[in-house]
Amino acid sequence: MLDLISRGAAETRTDLARQTGMARSTVAQRVDALIGFGLVEETEPGESTGGRPPRLLRLNTAHNCVLGVDLGATHCRVALLDIGGKPLASCETPIQITQGPHEVLAHVDARMHELLTRANRPLESVKAIGIGVPGPVEFATGRPVNPPIMPGWHEYPIPDFFTSRYNVEVLVDNDVNVLALGERRFAYPGSAHLLFVKIGTGIGCGIVADGRLHRGAQGSAGDIGHIRVPDAPHAVCRCGNTGCLEAVAGGAALAARLSAAGTPARTGHDVVTLVNQGDAAALRLVREGGRVIGDVLAGLVNFFNPEAIVVGGVMAQVHEPLLAGMREVIYQRSLPLATHRLTVVPSRSGEEGGSLGAGRLAIDHILAPDYINRALSTGQGAA
Amino acid sequence: MLDLISRGAAETRTDLARQTGMARSTVAQRVDALIGFGLVEETEPGESTGGRPPRLLRLNTAHNCVLGVDLGATHCRVALLDIGGKPLASCETPIQITQGPHEVLAHVDARMHELLTRANRPLESVKAIGIGVPGPVEFATGRPVNPPIMPGWHEYPIPDFFTSRYNVEVLVDNDVNVLALGERRFAYPGSAHLLFVKIGTGIGCGIVADGRLHRGAQGSAGDIGHIRVPDAPHAVCRCGNTGCLEAVAGGAALAARLSAAGTPARTGHDVVTLVNQGDAAALRLVREGGRVIGDVLAGLVNFFNPEAIVVGGVMAQVHEPLLAGMREVIYQRSLPLATHRLTVVPSRSGEEGGSLGAGRLAIDHILAPDYINRALSTGQGAA
Repeated sequence: MLDLISRGAAETRTDLARQTGMARSTVAQRVDALIGFGLVEETEPGESTGGRPPRLLRLNTAHNCVLGVDLGATHCRVALLDIGGKPLASCETPIQITQGPHEVLAHVDARMHELLTRANRPLESVKAIGIGVPGPVEFATGRPVNPPIMPGWHEYPIPDFFTSRYNVEVLVDNDVNVLALGERRFAYPGSAHLLFVKIGTGIGCGIVADGRLHRGAQGSAGDIGHIRVPDAPHAVCRCGNTGCLEAVAGGAALAARLSAAGTPARTGHDVVTLVNQGDAAALRLVREGGRVIGDVLAGLVNFFNPEAIVVGGVMAQVHEPLLAGMREVIYQRSLPLATHRLTVVPSRSGEEGGSLGAGRLAIDHILAPDYINRALSTGQGAA
Repeated sequence: MLDLISRGAAETRTDLARQTGMARSTVAQRVDALIGFGLVEETEPGESTGGRPPRLLRLNTAHNCVLGVDLGATHCRVALLDIGGKPLASCETPIQITQGPHEVLAHVDARMHELLTRANRPLESVKAIGIGVPGPVEFATGRPVNPPIMPGWHEYPIPDFFTSRYNVEVLVDNDVNVLALGERRFAYPGSAHLLFVKIGTGIGCGIVADGRLHRGAQGSAGDIGHIRVPDAPHAVCRCGNTGCLEAVAGGAALAARLSAAGTPARTGHDVVTLVNQGDAAALRLVREGGRVIGDVLAGLVNFFNPEAIVVGGVMAQVHEPLLAGMREVIYQRSLPLATHRLTVVPSRSGEEGGSLGAGRLAIDHILAPDYINRALSTGQGAA
């Protein structure tokens, strides 16, 4: 019901009864409970059309909001959104993720308070918090698991830091999942099946299946950076294997190959700068990297049959040669039925994609039947 | 609610209210509707424990059943199941799928009537029909799409053949999806994420994500037979590309390589026979084929993070060397977190896997909220 209301698919109690097939009395009872709980409000329509006009239902966005946090190696972005998904305020500040959880999360907490003050919303209006971090996370507990670039964060229970201060649930996921969710909700709301491929120093993928994040059995789904690519037995990867995708086509790998060929470059950022300066070797290398990534994605297109592949991360700043290489191989190697309506495009959500996606993770949690049922049953118990 | 009842997770109205968080009056109303509609029944418990014992809810299996059909190139298996998933009767008969839809479906219809008679169930007790066919299908309409081994079936609306005779919904899917569903429901009920890999003449994969079939944007998900494998630029595939997985490691490809090396073999069946006779070249080839398939699956394990990979199809009859080759590469090339609890096993559902899976497709359709809401709203309208 809440999903129908939030999507604008049902505006009245009559709509809800028709669309859910539930009896009008059941709908009335549930709607009253949602209104009592404060998640939904019922308004008078703007003008009468003769007879008694129906009262319209909508999410109570004035009293319910969420916070979305995007933590990177050196940046912190926080966004305040109402539960309709509308951004109310946001900020970006530099951090060093290596300073560890206490210092970084205290910084995040201070930014959250600033945003609430700026948007004039009380602390109690925050109903959930979503956080994306640059490393693997056990989603059920919100603890990072051996995150390579986050020393001191292994098994740190991130939600605990906030639950005591905000008394709400805190959802923590890796940055690529959060980006996939944000991109899907804000740029491709009609896409049920989408892959978000982040190409930075490493390469990762966020998977949206049937409109929801697919995390897999251990939460490691989407870790495509270590899929073996052909003809690269000498590319040594930080994971201890050889021939991994990111050891051949990640930003750091491209930089190393440019350096070896006589053009100094240390990071993916350096490669992007060189391409933008018109360096032919860098351009060729990025396009060739796109082909190697395309070879892996071609297999995943056959396997998963997505509607869209969205490319983000530092290297997507030079998306023309990169995506040209990717498309070349995908359209050559994937099945016609699977590529026929497939789009391979650069990310549209931009720098705020991470914080908005993290906010969306929180909103989806609030609007899910489990949360509502739990909340309503508690509310009814108290009434 | 129906899902809780069917899984035995809720046995009384009180259980349902507790587990769904719905008000007792709402639960009562919905349960009465389900009983009125005939899908659920309420019984007296076996013995009193003092006070008034609660009445127990269960699926009305006596009056509700489904038919599951597994069509292969040369076989037809039909199973009658009650909506609890219990097989009531089944049969297997030879057919030639190349005889086209009219002849083959008339044969299926006759077998269905025989099973109903044998199990003493009236035609009206059949609530849905599930059918698996050996080729690609547009699931929404139940029409095969350019099925390579089914001449005359392209775009034939299979459901129409049965809806006029049975007045129920008919679900049609490809054989691998149906096998995946059957294997998951009957052998791995606790697995949310499972891949069923069928290795016969070709190679295909059924994907269960979060307990449900993942069909992808165009319904072509799982078509892994045409993923490119390394070092096989000369393997020409029936799809028009080169280096495809099934052109290297499918049953027909292995047979062709054995023949070329001097051991006559025409099909995957011949290769199985040779392995069972102790032919060393055939054994070596099957294991090597397993490694090639394992290389593709290693990438899919990183991407999808399944709990189980189940191997079926003709070649699974020699699963020892085949799975040894597959495991060798998967455990070498996939990420430790993703392989840590992964099982790679031969199919357990056996020859009846297809018809039971097709039956399960029908049951899942009946027990889904959409079906119930539609049915109840129609029922209420009529009352």
